[in-house]
Amino acid sequence: MSISTIIPALRAALDAERVRDDAETLAIYSRDDTPGSCIPVMVLFPHSHEEVQAIVSIARRHRLPLVPRGAGSGNVGGAQPVPGSAVVSFECMQKICDYSAVDRTITVEAGCVTAAISAYVQADGLFYPPDPGSNPYCRIGGNLAMNAGGPHAVKYGVTRDYVLGLRAVTGTGETLCCGVHTSKGVVGYDLTRLLVGSEGTLALITEATLRLLPLPSAQATLRAVYDNTANACAAVQRVMAQHHTPSALELMDPYALAAVRAMGAARDLPEGSNALLMVEVDGEAITIPDQVQAIRAALAGEGSLEILEATDAAAVADLWAARKSLSPATKAMAPLKINEDVVVPVSRLRELLEAIEGIAAEQSLHIVSFGHAGNGNLHVNFLVHPQDGNEMRRARHGLQKLFQAVLTLDGTLSGEHGIGSSKRAYVPLELSPESLSIQRAIKRIFDPDAILNPGKLLPET
Amino acid sequence: MSISTIIPALRAALDAERVRDDAETLAIYSRDDTPGSCIPVMVLFPHSHEEVQAIVSIARRHRLPLVPRGAGSGNVGGAQPVPGSAVVSFECMQKICDYSAVDRTITVEAGCVTAAISAYVQADGLFYPPDPGSNPYCRIGGNLAMNAGGPHAVKYGVTRDYVLGLRAVTGTGETLCCGVHTSKGVVGYDLTRLLVGSEGTLALITEATLRLLPLPSAQATLRAVYDNTANACAAVQRVMAQHHTPSALELMDPYALAAVRAMGAARDLPEGSNALLMVEVDGEAITIPDQVQAIRAALAGEGSLEILEATDAAAVADLWAARKSLSPATKAMAPLKINEDVVVPVSRLRELLEAIEGIAAEQSLHIVSFGHAGNGNLHVNFLVHPQDGNEMRRARHGLQKLFQAVLTLDGTLSGEHGIGSSKRAYVPLELSPESLSIQRAIKRIFDPDAILNPGKLLPET
Repeated sequence: MSISTIIPALRAALDAERVRDDAETLAIYSRDDTPGSCIPVMVLFPHSHEEVQAIVSIARRHRLPLVPRGAGSGNVGGAQPVPGSAVVSFECMQKICDYSAVDRTITVEAGCVTAAISAYVQADGLFYPPDPGSNPYCRIGGNLAMNAGGPHAVKYGVTRDYVLGLRAVTGTGETLCCGVHTSKGVVGYDLTRLLVGSEGTLALITEATLRLLPLPSAQATLRAVYDNTANACAAVQRVMAQHHTPSALELMDPYALAAVRAMGAARDLPEGSNALLMVEVDGEAITIPDQVQAIRAALAGEGSLEILEATDAAAVADLWAARKSLSPATKAMAPLKINEDVVVPVSRLRELLEAIEGIAAEQSLHIVSFGHAGNGNLHVNFLVHPQDGNEMRRARHGLQKLFQAVLTLDGTLSGEHGIGSSKRAYVPLELSPESLSIQRAIKRIFDPDAILNPGKLLPET
Repeated sequence: MSISTIIPALRAALDAERVRDDAETLAIYSRDDTPGSCIPVMVLFPHSHEEVQAIVSIARRHRLPLVPRGAGSGNVGGAQPVPGSAVVSFECMQKICDYSAVDRTITVEAGCVTAAISAYVQADGLFYPPDPGSNPYCRIGGNLAMNAGGPHAVKYGVTRDYVLGLRAVTGTGETLCCGVHTSKGVVGYDLTRLLVGSEGTLALITEATLRLLPLPSAQATLRAVYDNTANACAAVQRVMAQHHTPSALELMDPYALAAVRAMGAARDLPEGSNALLMVEVDGEAITIPDQVQAIRAALAGEGSLEILEATDAAAVADLWAARKSLSPATKAMAPLKINEDVVVPVSRLRELLEAIEGIAAEQSLHIVSFGHAGNGNLHVNFLVHPQDGNEMRRARHGLQKLFQAVLTLDGTLSGEHGIGSSKRAYVPLELSPESLSIQRAIKRIFDPDAILNPGKLLPET
């Protein structure tokens, strides 16, 4: 492959200024929101499905690896270039292609900002439920590639649950339309959900038809604090076992709480607060008092120090701000944050947090855990110093032990971040050789020359 | 392949009496709920995953085609034997393997009766939402194979939306465990949803981990009649465009209404009633009056003759009984019922019904339509006489025109029945050659010797 022959071909297919290889552009696109970087050979900005198809066809001819990119907000290196690769950024493909309020469906291009979808349909009393933390800037194509979740998944589910149909370009440069424009459909194998979560390794998604829901008209938010994590986990279990599914149920462990307090938030907590739960309920206004009462009752119990309802919008915003600040706050606490995203059944959450506590003590590591407790989905952050070889070795041991604990507890290695390049070495802990062999064969069907996002998702052979 | 060598091998793997080749057993298992039949060479009744694995291994060695069977209640010949095949009936695999009320998950064997799942968890205030019409006797394995829907899909979704993980045996005799035991998980390609709806052509599902929901504590049912189908469709649109998603929204066209009346039901309808809607809402008791009011307002409009709320359980049961009697009633109306199951966006439902009316007139056919209007999913029944060659030819023309109309209206050929053997000739109308070529390649990965449910789902090459 010679870049000097590919670039003119690509410039002929796209406008010249949308095939960039200047140092500044390459530097910007050399990383996503994961530690590490790699300078790509070029960055491409297609405007349309047809241009994506042209890119893949040319790339295939020249065996040029393509790294698809939404906003670059992923945590597992899914959009990180590999040596000799071209980044395909979807940021110029933001069109709303079709929208029907009555059918509650919308078709958007892959570069559409996720939050823009809900904003677009809000006037009709609709919304697009999945809202990963990066919602205000992440793009739907990235969400589809990683099957993004978010705090509201506990009630509303994840990206996969809202995808009706896709338009995509496979690694052979062929157009693949899959799925339907209707709320039901069972014709053929479910290629739609095969592409969702495939991290850009099977096809480049260019358009998606998504399902919308009626926007809940009211909500309420409660904050509860506990003397220890075990008692907070017991409360999570009680909340999830009662009748009203909360629209969010977030947990902060003592170290997350300390991080939040260090930033000046949550200063009003009672003495001895070592774990915090945030619970949101939503629905028709008439249902809220009942829901709040049921949640309050479930939150009360051993070790409960305080249960507070946020009564105005500002108080709710403060609570969420504290929760959302955790990701940047923990990032600032050490030179490197190893950000895991494990899930266990809600009934095993206490055991998971005990295991994490044990790992932190045994390996002398600073581990901060918080996340979507209603899904049993914890963000476990190892705060480390890459210069400290000994600590890094302990962190690697700790990670291995964390994953073992998660799998022993009937859990999974990732709830919403995905595998990308960071976690691929650990995939064989969870998936059997039979499953991996099928997945590799599927990869070869869609992308026989392995040009689509190489080095991601599937472990090295 | 010689049956006389296979049967002893299978009898050694299973108990002898669970490998049947007596004429009576073969006759019983020669058909499902689809016109036509074919005598299999044997019927197998495995008791466990390991026995299914033994069956597939032996079958593969001898190139014996295997036809998996739940209750045999499918409408597209999915469980119909092909010449020389063995039926694998899952009826002896009904165990509940695992259940956690707090995690709202249940793991069941494939032969578990679908309604038995909800019955099992009801005491904990939970239920398993998908409820195809055959709910009281169909088996979860069949539901998974076909991605079954049902009247409540409009609010609760279909089988696919409730599957967390699967255990299965591929065509190579290998065990494949896919998915998770948690409410979230994104590790690897989504093989779980690839198997759901694959109609037993990729693997035999032996166990499934399913998601449960809190049981709604109250519901209400309304019946509305209209002077014509177009006005009923307009009402469907209005219902689906307002804030409260109904838990069911069923439509009967004039011919379905006549069939119901001929059975002695719905005798109290006002003069001139030519289309009927049944709407159910559910949720917390406190929400019901608001929901009923909103639905009533949406149902009212041009051509609305009467809107009635069923105020007691008996009245509701009567309404549902009338709706559920439609399938057997139409079957009794002619020697052959060709039962289609098309879907269009709700906004195009009126056009679909006009197209059906046009086809019936043009081809002089008796077509009865009813079904899940809230999903735009109509059961279109051609009532014909197989002896009448001319009528059968007109029916084939009519079917072709129906499918063309559906696809022109942005629809899909099947919403919940699947493809099986009956519809496979029509699949290329909807799926592109690229999509079919990928699907065939996937089939070869899972089942290289094509022993799993041959002649189903994928069109002939």
